[in-house]
Amino acid sequence: MTAQPAELRVGIIGTGNIGTAHAMSLTREVSGARVTCVFDADQARATAVAYQVGACVCSSVSALIECPDVDAVLIASPDDLHAEQALACLAAGRPTLLEKPLAPVLSDAEAVMAAEVALGRRLITLGFMRRFDPAYQQMKAQLDAGVVGEALIVRNLHRNTAAPYGLRSVGTLTNSAIHEMDINRWLLGQDYASVQVILPKPGPQTPPGEFDPLLVFFTTTSGAVVEIEAFANAWFGYEVACQVVGSRGQLDLGDGSLLIRTDERRRGVDLPELWLGRFGDAYRRELQAWVDCVRGLDDGQGAATVWDGLAATTAAQAAARALQSGSPEAIQMPKRPALYQ
Amino acid sequence: MTAQPAELRVGIIGTGNIGTAHAMSLTREVSGARVTCVFDADQARATAVAYQVGACVCSSVSALIECPDVDAVLIASPDDLHAEQALACLAAGRPTLLEKPLAPVLSDAEAVMAAEVALGRRLITLGFMRRFDPAYQQMKAQLDAGVVGEALIVRNLHRNTAAPYGLRSVGTLTNSAIHEMDINRWLLGQDYASVQVILPKPGPQTPPGEFDPLLVFFTTTSGAVVEIEAFANAWFGYEVACQVVGSRGQLDLGDGSLLIRTDERRRGVDLPELWLGRFGDAYRRELQAWVDCVRGLDDGQGAATVWDGLAATTAAQAAARALQSGSPEAIQMPKRPALYQ
Amino acid sequence: MTAQPAELRVGIIGTGNIGTAHAMSLTREVSGARVTCVFDADQARATAVAYQVGACVCSSVSALIECPDVDAVLIASPDDLHAEQALACLAAGRPTLLEKPLAPVLSDAEAVMAAEVALGRRLITLGFMRRFDPAYQQMKAQLDAGVVGEALIVRNLHRNTAAPYGLRSVGTLTNSAIHEMDINRWLLGQDYASVQVILPKPGPQTPPGEFDPLLVFFTTTSGAVVEIEAFANAWFGYEVACQVVGSRGQLDLGDGSLLIRTDERRRGVDLPELWLGRFGDAYRRELQAWVDCVRGLDDGQGAATVWDGLAATTAAQAAARALQSGSPEAIQMPKRPALYQ
Amino acid sequence: MTAQPAELRVGIIGTGNIGTAHAMSLTREVSGARVTCVFDADQARATAVAYQVGACVCSSVSALIECPDVDAVLIASPDDLHAEQALACLAAGRPTLLEKPLAPVLSDAEAVMAAEVALGRRLITLGFMRRFDPAYQQMKAQLDAGVVGEALIVRNLHRNTAAPYGLRSVGTLTNSAIHEMDINRWLLGQDYASVQVILPKPGPQTPPGEFDPLLVFFTTTSGAVVEIEAFANAWFGYEVACQVVGSRGQLDLGDGSLLIRTDERRRGVDLPELWLGRFGDAYRRELQAWVDCVRGLDDGQGAATVWDGLAATTAAQAAARALQSGSPEAIQMPKRPALYQ
Repeated sequence: MTAQPAELRVGIIGTGNIGTAHAMSLTREVSGARVTCVFDADQARATAVAYQVGACVCSSVSALIECPDVDAVLIASPDDLHAEQALACLAAGRPTLLEKPLAPVLSDAEAVMAAEVALGRRLITLGFMRRFDPAYQQMKAQLDAGVVGEALIVRNLHRNTAAPYGLRSVGTLTNSAIHEMDINRWLLGQDYASVQVILPKPGPQTPPGEFDPLLVFFTTTSGAVVEIEAFANAWFGYEVACQVVGSRGQLDLGDGSLLIRTDERRRGVDLPELWLGRFGDAYRRELQAWVDCVRGLDDGQGAATVWDGLAATTAAQAAARALQSGSPEAIQMPKRPALYQ
Repeated sequence: MTAQPAELRVGIIGTGNIGTAHAMSLTREVSGARVTCVFDADQARATAVAYQVGACVCSSVSALIECPDVDAVLIASPDDLHAEQALACLAAGRPTLLEKPLAPVLSDAEAVMAAEVALGRRLITLGFMRRFDPAYQQMKAQLDAGVVGEALIVRNLHRNTAAPYGLRSVGTLTNSAIHEMDINRWLLGQDYASVQVILPKPGPQTPPGEFDPLLVFFTTTSGAVVEIEAFANAWFGYEVACQVVGSRGQLDLGDGSLLIRTDERRRGVDLPELWLGRFGDAYRRELQAWVDCVRGLDDGQGAATVWDGLAATTAAQAAARALQSGSPEAIQMPKRPALYQ
Repeated sequence: MTAQPAELRVGIIGTGNIGTAHAMSLTREVSGARVTCVFDADQARATAVAYQVGACVCSSVSALIECPDVDAVLIASPDDLHAEQALACLAAGRPTLLEKPLAPVLSDAEAVMAAEVALGRRLITLGFMRRFDPAYQQMKAQLDAGVVGEALIVRNLHRNTAAPYGLRSVGTLTNSAIHEMDINRWLLGQDYASVQVILPKPGPQTPPGEFDPLLVFFTTTSGAVVEIEAFANAWFGYEVACQVVGSRGQLDLGDGSLLIRTDERRRGVDLPELWLGRFGDAYRRELQAWVDCVRGLDDGQGAATVWDGLAATTAAQAAARALQSGSPEAIQMPKRPALYQ
Repeated sequence: MTAQPAELRVGIIGTGNIGTAHAMSLTREVSGARVTCVFDADQARATAVAYQVGACVCSSVSALIECPDVDAVLIASPDDLHAEQALACLAAGRPTLLEKPLAPVLSDAEAVMAAEVALGRRLITLGFMRRFDPAYQQMKAQLDAGVVGEALIVRNLHRNTAAPYGLRSVGTLTNSAIHEMDINRWLLGQDYASVQVILPKPGPQTPPGEFDPLLVFFTTTSGAVVEIEAFANAWFGYEVACQVVGSRGQLDLGDGSLLIRTDERRRGVDLPELWLGRFGDAYRRELQAWVDCVRGLDDGQGAATVWDGLAATTAAQAAARALQSGSPEAIQMPKRPALYQ
């Protein structure tokens, strides 16, 4: 009989939509963890979540990070706070699951990487949950096995029914399409060499001076083209699609539809309004893998590192430059520290 | 801050394929439970599982049921032992998750029900895990909402690539198609009034005197027809399909394919060889719901009761009679005890 | 340079929906034919069609059949006139395309066959146009090639959005499901040995004493089961589907959808209200094949003969008996005349 | 009774694959036409076709055009002969169906247009047959009806299994992707304002110095983006796909599959090796519409004109420049002559 490691006590920073979903999932769906502390700038919101999961409310981020009842930290705060809080977790030596992006600004991302490299241990896991989606995993497995030859083109759709907080094209890149920037790197095992943006006529919900949908094209170091249609206000339905065109075949993600309905002379599937349903299981599996990894039960199953977070932010910022310039922009990654090899 | 109930300590009887899968899932994927004891007639097999999940090996079924370190029991033993072990769990007052079927023989099923009724509490949950499959749940939700009107016909396919332990037609009914007998009752909220069997020419793997595929037709108390194609040796692919033809529309389960592959002038999806992948998430959700229910966190989410198990066994035995007689057979359920209303 | 045979001059009896469609198709879409004469009991309707296609209006069926400007006759009159008019065409020695069914009453069908056998030449082609549908043809080609092994079950759906002229269950069999009775014989190359009917709860548009949908099950001489769901008032959409379950695989007709539309959080295809669109090309190809055959350019491409018409009427009448009796009914075909071998 | 116009006597220049297919279709599938004369530089090939369709073999292009037994001409010769032969037909006043492209070189295309404008009558129809494909027609009808709002992006795939006569990237544009250049103009009712090309890593069959697949992006005058993946050596399957992303929805061409096959744990459809099957019916309908139009029976149903041919050649040549330059290239159409308004 093997002794199981102790249950992981998790502190959560940020109890908005995704922080709350993580709190519930850790409590009700994940083995080996419980939420002991939460913090949110909105104390009432923190208290409500704390009550549901049987946790304490901390009075500050630093109080949470240093609480003796916290073994590991989950950061689900606004994007522009990620870097600072990640640095604090590193300073305290806390294993951390940090929601994407690592940081919207490249210098902040670099600072986190520098600190982790200085520490000499990988403590931070980036929340690119699509790596835990069974459909993407199956696609990667077949791609790696050479079933469709070499990838030449990867065509991605990422549509939301409504842009949160008003649409800004740069935000579409750094907050939403950043998922594709990570998952295509992961699928192909390649970095990006350049990027350009093609701008179709904007849809009717697009504010003046902004563009939506965006067509973004990365060329990888091996010459494959990664196309991303990022459409923030596609109110007709949420959708994520991915198609790999290889030299000997093609792979498409299935649509994952559970039910096909026929009525009134029409047969089809419903598209969701929101993304959480599509990736609910990926989030759960991501949390389970992180908990297992911190508890020493496995190796993290390919979760994203700070290096991956830096790569995605680098790509997003280059895309933002290409959006402004209208021309291809080169992408230069820094030297990869030994810690991430 | 709400106190969470204590972790549930589960003892598992039977560590074959499904018992082992449950042990791993309770340990690695389910919140609030751990496996403390296991028993199997094959002690080496029990020991291997025990080692993986950090449990003790018990020397007998009764030792496991009565172990003070066991709060609840999961029975995954051979079908013909289910009733006896369920009775022992009832006698010990242990909440129990019993793999389907309740019993292959109707009198055994009735004995378990009588004991539970005498006890006056529902302690046994039947492992009809399809009730926890998100696709079936979505189908039921739309059916209950009247989206396709009243169900007139439900057409089910249940194909396995190979019949375990050699094919016997009666076994196809009592062990495999029994899933459809439960899930269609649950979908429609109706009992069966009669059943008949139509026998197509047998496939080439069918032994003399047996039939495969079978076409089974139940008529429900409201007059709907439930068709089941049960095909035990459909080696070209495992498949479960369900189509509800309503008065105003139709519902079909999606095929759940994660990946569409194009190669060598063909585009399509792979069919699995085995059922575990198709229903892996349903099993996990079933276990989580059961653990939550025993811990008092929710109400069981419509899991099958002993009454449902009795209904399925009654239906399977009537289908077996119809297979022999070649004629429609009436189905008579006993009076429903108040405990199950 | 080969001389082409002269253009075929066709006389059409009956200018209802299908007769008019045939007249237009012969004139505008078929090579080597023109419509020279038409007759309809409703003279105004006949005149309108005649004007469109540049034909004469005949004053009677016999005048049309015997008109020296008519080389071949197309009969699209009401079902109960088919036999009498077919006999007149045989008497006049006119090649004839006769819309299905050969006759609703078996004795009439037998009389036509007897007359053709006595004549010693096959002059009559039955209008079972599905034999010319490219999808069914591809299915038959793969079935004949053994791609899915031996056919064990064939599952057919035949749904109309509204029963013409009020619903009578027997009419569903003899006028609508008769298409399946022919096409399954043709697909399998087998005759039927017996038939039974299972009656689901009727849909809401069903008059008292009638049943809709019907589930009809034929067993062929080799033991395959042919299932037909015939649903005359399935107002949610017209549909014809066919699925062959073989010993080594399965064949399904594609849905033939030309366009997939996504809007308002739904993605899918429209189902038609009427059958003409689905089989428009099959009708055209049937006409072309018939014209080519009569002109001596090819051999008719497997079009249905009077023998096939008799077999379909025999099957439909047995199904009607099974509908009344509630029991399986045996099907006995007469001896096949040498003319049809 | 209306007199029908006389049968159209067609002379065919070029009896390669497509010329032979047209000859057979005019003879066997099209109403109101017959092939009276053929010419091919390879006289044996011409003779073989002539024999099959009952036509004469002409000794030269001019002999065919001026033959008194020819009412109209179909040109299916090599691309670089199109302009010269079209000019000869114009000079002779012959209605002409000219296979695409109008000419590979822009100045030749302009010369044909100038001659037709000088003549003052539209005699030439361009063979962009996709305009007669029922699927594209249904797409256009829904787009014009505003069902998906305004078109923002149109995504096209055009894959061949093998490039004819060795692959040259410019040839992929001017001979193959020119179909998309026409059909997207027709779908959107818009001209192109600019074009750029993105070059993925070439597939393994690509000769040095050439690129395959190509990604071509047109921006229309209204700002919509038309994407074309042109893949000449996609040996894994022939495919044409089209997806319109609108402001309120999306339209996709159906895959047109007639048959879904399940075997050996795989379910799917076969992709063809060649294009003729996919567009066989469009070719037939194009020929019928052309014959009907020349015979004065209807107005041509939106067939492509010389102006459309010029627009497609202009687009293809701009794309060829963009392929060389690696930058966006502006597209300037000449003033549209009154003849084409």
